[in-house]
Order: sequence, then C-alpha cells, then structure tokens
Amino acid sequence: MRLLSILVLFLALGGCGTQIAPRRYVWITGLKPEKAQRYRELHANPWPGVNRLIKESHIQNFSIHQREIEGRLYLIAYLEYTGTNFDEDMKRMAADPETQRWWKETDPCQLPLPDALAKGKVWSDTEELYYLK
Amino acid sequence: MRLLSILVLFLALGGCGTQIAPRRYVWITGLKPEKAQRYRELHANPWPGVNRLIKESHIQNFSIHQREIEGRLYLIAYLEYTGTNFDEDMKRMAADPETQRWWKETDPCQLPLPDALAKGKVWSDTEELYYLK
Repeated sequence: MRLLSILVLFLALGGCGTQIAPRRYVWITGLKPEKAQRYRELHANPWPGVNRLIKESHIQNFSIHQREIEGRLYLIAYLEYTGTNFDEDMKRMAADPETQRWWKETDPCQLPLPDALAKGKVWSDTEELYYLK
Repeated sequence: MRLLSILVLFLALGGCGTQIAPRRYVWITGLKPEKAQRYRELHANPWPGVNRLIKESHIQNFSIHQREIEGRLYLIAYLEYTGTNFDEDMKRMAADPETQRWWKETDPCQLPLPDALAKGKVWSDTEELYYLK
C-alpha cells in the first residue's frame, strides 16, 4: 500500500507524461543542387551551440529530410514545439550570433518557395490533415 | 532512503524512457486536386479500427500534411516506428480487411511519385540529413 501511494505521488509530481502536448510542424523549402553536398555535410556535423539553442527554444524531435520531386530537390523539416510562445522563441533564436553564423552557411544552400520568399523566410508551412490518436 | 530506492526500482523497471528509440520516417506522395477534399474529410474522421491497427503495428506520432509545390499538391507523412520488424508489421497491416477498405478510399486520391509507382507503392521515402541531439 505504501509502495502504491509513493508511485501515485511520483506520477502526480510529474514522473511521466505531464509535459505540454507538443505542437507539430512540417516545413518545406528547396535545396540548390550545387549546394546539396555542402548542406548535407553541415547537417551531419551540426554545431553544438546551435543545437543547444534549438533545444532551449522548446524545440524537440527535430529532423530534416531530403527528397527529389519532379527533378528538383527539396528539404522537409519535422519538429515539435513544447513552449508557450513560438514567435518569441523564434525571435530569440534569430538574435543569437552563432545561429546567425549557422544560417549564413545554410541560407545560400536553400531555395525558398514563393510564399516563404515573399515573407523573407526560408521555410514554408504545410497543413496537417491527420494525426494518429 | 527507502523512497529513493523505490523510485530507482520503478525507473529501472521501465517507468520512463526505456522504450526502444523510434525510427523516423518521412514519406511523400502526390494528391489529386479533384480528390483533395475527399482525402481531407477521410482524415478528419479516420476509422477507429484503422488507427488501432496502426498503433498495434508499432507506429506512433503519425501525422499527414498537405502542401502545394510548383502548382501541384503533395502529402507529407511523418511517423515513428518502435517495433523490431517493420516489413512484417507492414505486411500485417496490408492483410487487414478494414485497412484494405480504407486504402480503397484513399488510394484513388493519391498520385504516387515515379519511384513509388515503379514498386507498386503509394508513398516515397525521403533521406534524413539531420536529427537534433
């Protein structure tokens, strides 16, 4: 009985599953063929400070994938946001000098889609149709 | 001291974080414009039996997203696999009558890319370049 009550207390205090439900994002952008190898190398050895800031900005489970569609190369990003102010967290990332240096390497590799380009952004949003519940 | 040892035992027995590390998949396929609304409606109300089998097949965190690229519509799927035999689990799904009925609804909405089409599949793979660690 004592074991049970301790376990219940542990769970209630946040042992498991009490994290804020993540908000999912899938983003897409183009990749210049002549820069694909450079982009690949950068992301095979991402800078620790950049990764650290991404995590501090409440982003988790972030991956980037490459795919050819109709003869062009694209990058697809999946990430989960667990914070409460996405815009604020993005602004903080954009203000970080190391992240700015990283983007100076990655931006010239990417070919934003027209809607992102119009907003001065790199990545375009997608629309979620389904989530497994 | 007794509390601490119980907590350690609980964690060791699988309280948190002892799940097999998921394998990530990002897939892509085309979406027929004239079937986009039908596909959206199906996925806004997925059949419970289909969802159940997906989960029993060790798939989690599965979402499907829509996006227009260069004037064409595409579907992007993100999912995580936590099992030990992906091909076997996929075969079991493909053999399920309700899943077959579901695919009979969704297949006519999709426009597989050439590499998937050549294999008689709907979804094309992508290649992961980066994962946040």
